[in-house]
Amino acid sequence: MEKSRIGLIRVLTTDDPKILDLHGNLIMEFFPGLEVITRCIPGQPQGVFDEASEEEAWPKVVDLAQEMAADDVEVIIVSCIADPGVKQTRDILDIPIIGAGSATAHVALSLGTSVAALGITEDVPAAMADVLGSALFASAKPAGVETTVDLMKPLGKKAVLTAARELKEQGAKVLVLVCTGMSTIGVAEDMRRELGIRVVDPVIATGLVAWYATREL
Amino acid sequence: MEKSRIGLIRVLTTDDPKILDLHGNLIMEFFPGLEVITRCIPGQPQGVFDEASEEEAWPKVVDLAQEMAADDVEVIIVSCIADPGVKQTRDILDIPIIGAGSATAHVALSLGTSVAALGITEDVPAAMADVLGSALFASAKPAGVETTVDLMKPLGKKAVLTAARELKEQGAKVLVLVCTGMSTIGVAEDMRRELGIRVVDPVIATGLVAWYATREL
Repeated sequence: MEKSRIGLIRVLTTDDPKILDLHGNLIMEFFPGLEVITRCIPGQPQGVFDEASEEEAWPKVVDLAQEMAADDVEVIIVSCIADPGVKQTRDILDIPIIGAGSATAHVALSLGTSVAALGITEDVPAAMADVLGSALFASAKPAGVETTVDLMKPLGKKAVLTAARELKEQGAKVLVLVCTGMSTIGVAEDMRRELGIRVVDPVIATGLVAWYATREL
Repeated sequence: MEKSRIGLIRVLTTDDPKILDLHGNLIMEFFPGLEVITRCIPGQPQGVFDEASEEEAWPKVVDLAQEMAADDVEVIIVSCIADPGVKQTRDILDIPIIGAGSATAHVALSLGTSVAALGITEDVPAAMADVLGSALFASAKPAGVETTVDLMKPLGKKAVLTAARELKEQGAKVLVLVCTGMSTIGVAEDMRRELGIRVVDPVIATGLVAWYATREL
């Protein structure tokens, strides 16, 4: 069967293909019917991490999405939980534009309504918080983890699991990971195994929606 | 690979296995990794079609869900777009409880934000409307179609396509089908082919979420 071509936009500028393709490779691993083509926006080696960097990023996302759409992708993923440029791109292009923030929040809410968010800051970006609304009753960050690099260290993963356990004890039925760096360390699987809790991984949940859009079920 | 057992609750009372299994069979066709076990609530041969019948149905859904959970299903689907008993069952059981109304609305919103609803009445049930919020800008019903039986007739399908075309002309980017009877006639596929519009089929979208929950991605 022919694979469906998906365009994936990273908002982290990098010329290291191993870093660039992290999200796309994860999605292709879980959804073998998809061929994910990844590109990144220019001039943002620190990615999107606050309001100013988001403001800077979104017009670049719109430009890149238009280029990728011209290259015959069926669906575009904006692989950032702040959904920069998603709304604006939808106004211009007619193909499905999927934002990791909103898609993850929607998948979480279809599974349950006591949702807690776990990221590397305590803030939950508006793209997610707006969707989760009153279902979002708590958010947390792992102690001692400030950047995605910290996540890669053994103590980083342990701190994430501790924070997840606390959210479960507070009554969370569904955990939402608010950082795509948590997808790349595969910590969702550890949480399910060790804590027996439902966890929504942002990269995989976004891949799920993209896969749905291409299969035209 | 072993299949994941899903419990599916119909709110239409029937002892005809062909009718009973319509939704479950559709889901198994699209998600071969799932084994769907279907049961229906007692005493409602007309199903759920208004507030009174919903009030009557929801405690029966809660009872049946508890019985099915004891029978080792991993996930329970309430296959009705009004989500009767979903909230109440979630308060009791610890496995994912997926309501067709909310799941369908969430899948639609992850694909786009100009959503129109197409059902056999113009009402959109609260379970869906609450999720769609301001993204829901129009709803319609096909002319001359009053029951799911009308949908089965050749003129019924034609009327559904005409109504879908009108919603597209009004600016809908994503159509949500607000009637599981539209799933069983497979009209979503006709809409995509003839109108080139994104369509979210309630039974399949619910199956998507159930499949995600069992795969523990």
